[in-house]
Amino acid sequence: MNILDIIEKKRDGKELNKQEINFFVSEYVKNNIPDYQISALLMAMFINNISFKEIVNLTNAMICSGDTICLREINGIKADKHSTGGVGDKTSLVVGPLVASCNVKFAKMSGRGLGHTGGTLDKLESIPGMSITLTNEKFKKQVNSIGISIIGQNTNLVPADKKLYALRDVTATVENIGLIASSIMSKKIASGSDTILLDVKVGSGAFMKTLQRAKELSTVLVKIGRQFKKDTRVLITNMQEPLGYAVGNILEVKEAIATLKNEGPEDFTILCRKCASVILLQSKIVNNEKEALKMINDKLISGEAFSKFKEFIKAQGGDISYIDNPNKFNLAKHVVEVRAEKTGYIKEINALSIGKSAMQLGAGRKVKTDNIDFAAGIVLKKKVGDYVKRNDVICVIHTNKKNFSDVISDIKNAFVFSDKKVDKQKIIIDYIS
Amino acid sequence: MNILDIIEKKRDGKELNKQEINFFVSEYVKNNIPDYQISALLMAMFINNISFKEIVNLTNAMICSGDTICLREINGIKADKHSTGGVGDKTSLVVGPLVASCNVKFAKMSGRGLGHTGGTLDKLESIPGMSITLTNEKFKKQVNSIGISIIGQNTNLVPADKKLYALRDVTATVENIGLIASSIMSKKIASGSDTILLDVKVGSGAFMKTLQRAKELSTVLVKIGRQFKKDTRVLITNMQEPLGYAVGNILEVKEAIATLKNEGPEDFTILCRKCASVILLQSKIVNNEKEALKMINDKLISGEAFSKFKEFIKAQGGDISYIDNPNKFNLAKHVVEVRAEKTGYIKEINALSIGKSAMQLGAGRKVKTDNIDFAAGIVLKKKVGDYVKRNDVICVIHTNKKNFSDVISDIKNAFVFSDKKVDKQKIIIDYIS
Repeated sequence: MNILDIIEKKRDGKELNKQEINFFVSEYVKNNIPDYQISALLMAMFINNISFKEIVNLTNAMICSGDTICLREINGIKADKHSTGGVGDKTSLVVGPLVASCNVKFAKMSGRGLGHTGGTLDKLESIPGMSITLTNEKFKKQVNSIGISIIGQNTNLVPADKKLYALRDVTATVENIGLIASSIMSKKIASGSDTILLDVKVGSGAFMKTLQRAKELSTVLVKIGRQFKKDTRVLITNMQEPLGYAVGNILEVKEAIATLKNEGPEDFTILCRKCASVILLQSKIVNNEKEALKMINDKLISGEAFSKFKEFIKAQGGDISYIDNPNKFNLAKHVVEVRAEKTGYIKEINALSIGKSAMQLGAGRKVKTDNIDFAAGIVLKKKVGDYVKRNDVICVIHTNKKNFSDVISDIKNAFVFSDKKVDKQKIIIDYIS
Repeated sequence: MNILDIIEKKRDGKELNKQEINFFVSEYVKNNIPDYQISALLMAMFINNISFKEIVNLTNAMICSGDTICLREINGIKADKHSTGGVGDKTSLVVGPLVASCNVKFAKMSGRGLGHTGGTLDKLESIPGMSITLTNEKFKKQVNSIGISIIGQNTNLVPADKKLYALRDVTATVENIGLIASSIMSKKIASGSDTILLDVKVGSGAFMKTLQRAKELSTVLVKIGRQFKKDTRVLITNMQEPLGYAVGNILEVKEAIATLKNEGPEDFTILCRKCASVILLQSKIVNNEKEALKMINDKLISGEAFSKFKEFIKAQGGDISYIDNPNKFNLAKHVVEVRAEKTGYIKEINALSIGKSAMQLGAGRKVKTDNIDFAAGIVLKKKVGDYVKRNDVICVIHTNKKNFSDVISDIKNAFVFSDKKVDKQKIIIDYIS
């Protein structure tokens, strides 16, 4: 087999077979094929598209490129959840303990990507003492005993995706449904859970900018899951404005704590309950959504979900005195109110812009080696649909940086006002199973 | 300007502007852009195609990437000729001296590419003593005094094309009309001649496999020439069977000598006369084709064309005793007749197959560092349309290699027979000016 023939075939719009896909993926991982040939192939795949058969074979080839995790030692159905990423997305911090309090086995391995405002692992690490570097043995043992663990990848999972994604990132070949879908699913399948819930974000702050693209991606994700015999379901959710009020690591942990006490923001609470209900269905803990939502409500009201969160944090070394008393968390040096310059209804709070501003304040990484300031971020005081008078506080910024006047003006620009009444945004857009 | 934006733009099928094309070409030559980004861009250009405006801007950017030759010190109109390459193509060896004997200034700088059977430079170097490494000063002086010189590129002409072509070659992005046309024309324009005659070969032994593709390419070549104010004309000629009878360096030089004495093969003689007549028209030596063909015929009959060839060889250090007595050339150790296994009319002599066989016998290079055996090659004894009886000699192989039985069977397979009468192939297919 010859890489040039494979490139030529895809260049001419033909379908690659399983052997050809296995060949280029495995040889690329072994550094036997140079980047410049794979980038030409990726561009041909991007422009000419890849068929569903090719997507499945690519997913499989990527899974086979590295280690896979076996979770058979954990009793029962193992559930996993993954979000395509957005601004203010702390959903796993709530959904994990919530479903674990309903007896689900929640076993999540997170990758550490770039993001405007840190990922799930960064948010967990903002809790003093918390460790996300458990061995696989300890990880499994913990899930078996308390029902939940969230850790960073500690094995060589899907090295092909790491290499291919890095190359796609610098060759304008990221935004292709087939390539995105195989990248997401290869990692989830290699992580070994039985069920997968994917939260596909759509809107200005998300990877998928339009609902149509989000639906296309979601359909493919579910179909791949079916091929690999994993119960895979997708929630398409709104990322036009930030999720909840808090953006930034400690700020989001505090909001997660409030939500686990059933005192969280409306949109975020609805999302967490919906995610949890789907996972309960996938785990066959309940027979229907009504039962699921009742159980979830009970666990939130009774405090069992919050207790499970503390159990989880404690099991991984976290100091739960911070969870019991969130005021213990360090505050940033500068906590500054941002006020509205107009009176009217908020029509838009551009999520991408808020995410970038939070990063400027120190909450995220521009490059992999950047340090995150856990205390930095933005807390919204208003959401889309709210009526605001001139000089009302629309958000509060938290930062240890000296110069933030440019960021404040960016944040003000992220808010768009309207004279007419504006509807609140709907958080759950679609459910595909 | 940012290479990622440029890749993305072309990926989405949009037209790149002059600044963007200049940027990626010049930065790539300076090694400021890695291969893997340019190969992705080339694949996008290949699949989405490039507009004529982009082709012109690409040609210009490539010319500007290196030195250009100024031939103003040579009096009169300077003519150049280039072939897209084929099997048995020794046309420049005849056409150069022929038009020089008609007072044309024939100034040709050849690149040394890979080929089944060597290029013009290799054929010249098979003449003992012949040098193709003149300084530009000597080159111009020789053209001024005797009307002809053919040398290898000795300056940094179009380095962008060298780099881009090498990358295209390993990423399946060679066969795109726009990329081919800008590659050819940038080199010809940088070489400084006033007129350009391009011999675009079409058929199994050529780069262009179909007449339609050859016509598309030719039209673009002529249009580029017009943009750069160079009189550019194209002959589309047959490369379905090898040109003439001889394939291989010394063997082709001998056939060129015979043709300059007006004793050459019919197809090759017609092609040389046609090429020469177009160059005479381009150089404004004659008013019309009839005058041109008469002058050409006179120079061939009178021996002036042959004398000019000797003058040319002598000027560049070649030993003309070999030209006066071609039997002086070394013969290969093995000279073996190949005989027909059938009786009938020859319907096809696959040029690509004959070219590859000649390479196997030692006449060409597989990789740049291979040595050419000047004596090796194949001399056809029959052409398409000839009637052959079983056991007639159809060709003679010349080689210094020991094992050539596989090659002989390949050669036999290259000949296709028919019971019905077959027309001779027409050498000149089209003329575009």
